[in-house]
Amino acid sequence: MIKVGIVGGTGYTGVELLRLLAQHPHAELMAITSRKEAGLPVAELFPSLRGRVNLAFSDPSQAPLDQCDVVFFATPHGVAMEQARSLLAKGVRVIDLAADFRLQDPVEFERWYKMPHGCTDLLAQAVYGLPEINRQAIQQAQLIGLPGCYPTSVQLGYLPVLERAGLIDPTSLIADCKSGVSGAGRKAEVGTLFSESSDNFKAYGVSGHRHWPEITQGLKAIMARGDWTGSEREGLKFAFIPHLTPMIRGIHSTLYARLTPKGQQTDIQALYESRFADEPFVDVLPAGATPETRSVRASNYVRIAVHKPPVSAGADQDLLCILVVEDNLVKGASGQAVQVMNLLFNLPETAGLTLVPVLP
Amino acid sequence: MIKVGIVGGTGYTGVELLRLLAQHPHAELMAITSRKEAGLPVAELFPSLRGRVNLAFSDPSQAPLDQCDVVFFATPHGVAMEQARSLLAKGVRVIDLAADFRLQDPVEFERWYKMPHGCTDLLAQAVYGLPEINRQAIQQAQLIGLPGCYPTSVQLGYLPVLERAGLIDPTSLIADCKSGVSGAGRKAEVGTLFSESSDNFKAYGVSGHRHWPEITQGLKAIMARGDWTGSEREGLKFAFIPHLTPMIRGIHSTLYARLTPKGQQTDIQALYESRFADEPFVDVLPAGATPETRSVRASNYVRIAVHKPPVSAGADQDLLCILVVEDNLVKGASGQAVQVMNLLFNLPETAGLTLVPVLP
Amino acid sequence: MIKVGIVGGTGYTGVELLRLLAQHPHAELMAITSRKEAGLPVAELFPSLRGRVNLAFSDPSQAPLDQCDVVFFATPHGVAMEQARSLLAKGVRVIDLAADFRLQDPVEFERWYKMPHGCTDLLAQAVYGLPEINRQAIQQAQLIGLPGCYPTSVQLGYLPVLERAGLIDPTSLIADCKSGVSGAGRKAEVGTLFSESSDNFKAYGVSGHRHWPEITQGLKAIMARGDWTGSEREGLKFAFIPHLTPMIRGIHSTLYARLTPKGQQTDIQALYESRFADEPFVDVLPAGATPETRSVRASNYVRIAVHKPPVSAGADQDLLCILVVEDNLVKGASGQAVQVMNLLFNLPETAGLTLVPVLP
Amino acid sequence: MIKVGIVGGTGYTGVELLRLLAQHPHAELMAITSRKEAGLPVAELFPSLRGRVNLAFSDPSQAPLDQCDVVFFATPHGVAMEQARSLLAKGVRVIDLAADFRLQDPVEFERWYKMPHGCTDLLAQAVYGLPEINRQAIQQAQLIGLPGCYPTSVQLGYLPVLERAGLIDPTSLIADCKSGVSGAGRKAEVGTLFSESSDNFKAYGVSGHRHWPEITQGLKAIMARGDWTGSEREGLKFAFIPHLTPMIRGIHSTLYARLTPKGQQTDIQALYESRFADEPFVDVLPAGATPETRSVRASNYVRIAVHKPPVSAGADQDLLCILVVEDNLVKGASGQAVQVMNLLFNLPETAGLTLVPVLP
Repeated sequence: MIKVGIVGGTGYTGVELLRLLAQHPHAELMAITSRKEAGLPVAELFPSLRGRVNLAFSDPSQAPLDQCDVVFFATPHGVAMEQARSLLAKGVRVIDLAADFRLQDPVEFERWYKMPHGCTDLLAQAVYGLPEINRQAIQQAQLIGLPGCYPTSVQLGYLPVLERAGLIDPTSLIADCKSGVSGAGRKAEVGTLFSESSDNFKAYGVSGHRHWPEITQGLKAIMARGDWTGSEREGLKFAFIPHLTPMIRGIHSTLYARLTPKGQQTDIQALYESRFADEPFVDVLPAGATPETRSVRASNYVRIAVHKPPVSAGADQDLLCILVVEDNLVKGASGQAVQVMNLLFNLPETAGLTLVPVLP
Repeated sequence: MIKVGIVGGTGYTGVELLRLLAQHPHAELMAITSRKEAGLPVAELFPSLRGRVNLAFSDPSQAPLDQCDVVFFATPHGVAMEQARSLLAKGVRVIDLAADFRLQDPVEFERWYKMPHGCTDLLAQAVYGLPEINRQAIQQAQLIGLPGCYPTSVQLGYLPVLERAGLIDPTSLIADCKSGVSGAGRKAEVGTLFSESSDNFKAYGVSGHRHWPEITQGLKAIMARGDWTGSEREGLKFAFIPHLTPMIRGIHSTLYARLTPKGQQTDIQALYESRFADEPFVDVLPAGATPETRSVRASNYVRIAVHKPPVSAGADQDLLCILVVEDNLVKGASGQAVQVMNLLFNLPETAGLTLVPVLP
Repeated sequence: MIKVGIVGGTGYTGVELLRLLAQHPHAELMAITSRKEAGLPVAELFPSLRGRVNLAFSDPSQAPLDQCDVVFFATPHGVAMEQARSLLAKGVRVIDLAADFRLQDPVEFERWYKMPHGCTDLLAQAVYGLPEINRQAIQQAQLIGLPGCYPTSVQLGYLPVLERAGLIDPTSLIADCKSGVSGAGRKAEVGTLFSESSDNFKAYGVSGHRHWPEITQGLKAIMARGDWTGSEREGLKFAFIPHLTPMIRGIHSTLYARLTPKGQQTDIQALYESRFADEPFVDVLPAGATPETRSVRASNYVRIAVHKPPVSAGADQDLLCILVVEDNLVKGASGQAVQVMNLLFNLPETAGLTLVPVLP
Repeated sequence: MIKVGIVGGTGYTGVELLRLLAQHPHAELMAITSRKEAGLPVAELFPSLRGRVNLAFSDPSQAPLDQCDVVFFATPHGVAMEQARSLLAKGVRVIDLAADFRLQDPVEFERWYKMPHGCTDLLAQAVYGLPEINRQAIQQAQLIGLPGCYPTSVQLGYLPVLERAGLIDPTSLIADCKSGVSGAGRKAEVGTLFSESSDNFKAYGVSGHRHWPEITQGLKAIMARGDWTGSEREGLKFAFIPHLTPMIRGIHSTLYARLTPKGQQTDIQALYESRFADEPFVDVLPAGATPETRSVRASNYVRIAVHKPPVSAGADQDLLCILVVEDNLVKGASGQAVQVMNLLFNLPETAGLTLVPVLP
């Protein structure tokens, strides 16, 4: 059994980790910390876990984290940065669900997260935890920066047409994304109250969202796997417009790109199907289908469909539209964290993650 | 008092017309027809109208429609087409909330609505009822084809940058639209059941939606007001991707276009503010703001914000992103119908439409 | 025009007051205060009011409240208590939407609100602002304690069978109430986040809710209008079980009482219809109907239905079940406040309150 | 492996059965029938099952149901009645999720379901499938009538205080129940459209709901286990008032009963805890807690809390209030069906049912 610790488990990624780990055949939860809730049984905060998780939250200073095989940080940005070093020194693997180890450039990190990066040496060795792109590196890693929820869906959606040069115009990328409200976390804020976000729809973060530099970095890394020239990579133009939609879970990313003439002659449907044929959690829908977020609710699946919408009567259909759905708390966070844990410890990659989506 | 008749008032646009007309200072409801519900008091079907609308549904054959000043068709497509001629012959103005008189080209109509157009001569004299674009023509009209809900928001959103040539690349238009479920109407269908569309998000109609030719026609008409060349107009590329979001009312249209160098040098915010300065129902938000659908809930307002999202670090910001919200049942349908009625009868354009949005 | 001031308008009852007053033919908004948001235009906090309310929040110390005809307190409990005296001294009428002047007994107030009552002399002269019961007293009042949202629906629901002695067993009253989430106010709290209260249902406050003593007081006052004996009044047993339901607005109170033999022989439907025949905002549904909260959404109406559900095959039907719906923010708060204002100033009682409910 | 067939799997209980069986360690799905959808892959109708359920719907006449060990009927009322006999004759166990085998009295069945009962001899041998009450009989049964969703929660909620005589007044029972919309099934109907049932709350079926005779029968059967006299049992007065609440899954039953003096002296909390101590799916919350439906979402758990709400200052607290939550599609239908299947085949009762609730 893998001995698991969780730092900061009072948020939504925390309770979701607990739900998944409680059903994992090879993981044993040793400790879950919360400075604020120390002493409180986990199942009192999250009654869904009654009878299934018997631990209480413990004070970080007293939790046996260094005796764990792996520690998940389900904390605000900046916490893993401070505590990862001592755990790594004792051989503990660290998976950070926050942003501390996502951006390779500490200057970018400081620009977007408004704090200096506290351990740039560790940052240099951290691996970006997106298995479909980085599987081999993950298997060897000690320290994982887990992707954000939006970045997971956007990178997977563009992957097949971007890791091969010349199919799309790299200055034409637009991601129009819609997220359920749980993406904002379990923080007491007016903006995500039921009476504010129910029966309502809006864009936010249009002038700059923290996932934009992360996605940009990821898309350029994908391009680097193909034959794109350096100037093409640098010329990447990617726009990201997130929206808040009145549902609890789910992200729907609607991705746009202009196909080159070569791209227009390519069988994009076949390209996507073959690219993800061996991926256990990426499902390419048949031509013409449209995915819905509930089809992956509470599961680790991503479902993708590719379309060429009519752009005008009789004209060339050069617009590619890729639709991607995921559960932001599972494949967008805690499920991906467990998937990465499975890779780190040579477990079957799907262990504990075969839960069937909940519909309706 | 304007004598008003409604044909087919059992759907959502019907009940919304009734709500608005019951509060209109210059309108008097004479008859509302429904073949299926003939005899049933309107307030039994819609208890919100108890004490406010005392009519019963009447059989179409017996309703005194030809004694009305104006008749609204809140019917499925194809009905107004059959009944408009006799009403028009008696001098009754006709406002069709369905699609019978939206598309100027009967071939296009048949292609998208799967029925031949039954009165192409009337079609030729029908006026497209979007006051912000067609106010003068509406004032002279006998027969109005009222815009669809999506087309209203998309055309108003692009209007300022498209009626002047050269600001945007007319091959770059993408409308990523999100609608509340009431847009699908009050029809018994599995797909719009609460348990199907709640806590869920999806795209639909990606391969072709009936509002796409209507918007395309409208955008070209807007271009015809500016100095665009004929080939530029014909070269328009417009993609339309509608999505269903779990709320009752509201449309949020996220519109994209690539700015030309000239457009990049233009103060787009000022352009929008000046264009709509005199429009009573179009509100341009301050720079940086993002509109939310609930800010117009149950009202006839449209709110618009313009943004240039970052497209990549250091690169030119050539992407224009226009955010438009409306209540699909009000400005997207019944409110616009009343606004048009006001124009037809030289009433103050805002009469009966000054209801303040309901928030929360 | 009645000059109106609002103290503390940043919550839901505040924005709802603003919505109603902006459409009131005889009210002029002079000032709205908020210590925290002083200087901020109201329409920036509540974009639904753009173009309709042009005031900014002002600091309480600088607002010309004493020049108003009436001041509404849409504040937390305890504020009106401190500020009412000086306003009353200047002849300003005061309507408190919080609980400061609801409970006649200051000991009860302190027990439930955990603060001593600061002005028991004013309390003695305050009038409980439920027009259907207290119309005449309200017309003469200077200071109004406006009922809570639940108490309005429960008292109106029991009124006809309780103001006449002997129809029901006064030890059998149970109110099983369900409220939309806006009833919890616009406060940043985890429990009312979208992700906590959407797709969820629960009871709360079962061991004691602040509206329980208020309702108990009100029901006893209603009994005092009839021929109940003192011991019957004192023997009243009323249980109150509130629940939270995932909708923004609306309260549905399901009220139970055991009919006496005399009550079983009474035509309860007729009793309700005649009792409320002249009430402009209380609508008794036909026998057999069930009200739904959306039928009063955004309006000042209350709709009531009375039922005798089968209690067992062949047995006497002694259970009376009364169903009451209201919009908690309108008739349950701000609409009732305006109705009371109309009474205070001899305006038509329905002035500004004829808005038709919004459905769907 | 148990060979399983499903008749009529296109509704919500059908897809939920599929979700649970796909994760069951000892069940193998052999056939699922649908006359209407014959030939359609199940995963096309329910994309959540893509990659997990590879069967297509088959025509009932061609499905190898008689080679199954057990067949579930997830059909409208009246279907199992016609098809059960031939399956039973071949030794197949039958579990009916509809109402055909719930009511022991065929006259009552016909009265409530408006059709004669087609096989009263089978009805006589059918076992009511509520394991917490009927475990032993279920283990021996061939034919199971599975309880309705409301009846499961109401019977479990009253069980401890009703199977022992003298604790409560049996003429005082009221069940005020609230259900999510999925309880109405996956039928195309206006009343359960998103735009009708979202942001809305209402009672329904107040004058008589089909679950009322089923619950009455069940409560009397529970009383028969205790020392109640025959006249006490016959004198049972039970009222049932169901409500529709805007959520997909979940039932919250608020149950009332008057405690006798003996009941008032009993430790009800301890009684409930001990009664359900060995039940794997019934969880009694600590004193003072209130259950929420999401705490059992997508799981087979029932959570119960018992309260004595204040009924009036200083008076005797004779009202017992029992709060029960379940997922109507799991413990209220398909999960209970699997639990019963486990009992029928001597599998561990929790096999395939250990899924942790999904929260948020």
